[in-house]
Amino acid sequence: MTKVNVYVTLRESVVDPQGIAAQEALQTLGFNEVESVRIGRLIELELAGTESEIEARVKEMCDKLLVNKVIEDYSFEIREVAGK
Amino acid sequence: MTKVNVYVTLRESVVDPQGIAAQEALQTLGFNEVESVRIGRLIELELAGTESEIEARVKEMCDKLLVNKVIEDYSFEIREVAGK
Repeated sequence: MTKVNVYVTLRESVVDPQGIAAQEALQTLGFNEVESVRIGRLIELELAGTESEIEARVKEMCDKLLVNKVIEDYSFEIREVAGK
Repeated sequence: MTKVNVYVTLRESVVDPQGIAAQEALQTLGFNEVESVRIGRLIELELAGTESEIEARVKEMCDKLLVNKVIEDYSFEIREVAGK
């Protein structure tokens, strides 16, 4: 079983209200050194297949379901490859 | 300005309904090789300070606001250190 982490972030041009709220809350708590907070998703997948199959399939999953490519970008990392 | 990525995941013992829904949707689309999907948060911070200050402060931010430690775990990575 292979573990893959998918990192989904809002495109830079898209306003992130959740991030702004977190930044304001951090400032209220005294963390004034924080200039920017953006909140995205970390999707942890466990799946079977060879490394090259997995790379192609995860890309397809992101394009079809996991990522809204109009407003989001993504990258992924194959973290752990285990034998069958 | 330094960039820090905080990775927030649900603890293993906590059920993740969003992940289960994504897994079911992936299976409906034919991605039957997917055994598990867990959805967490990726928090991207930009902040000022030296590397050791930042490490301590980010830990404090996670403990006080960003992470619900009852149900979530976190780790973070200092990605880019730039001069003032």
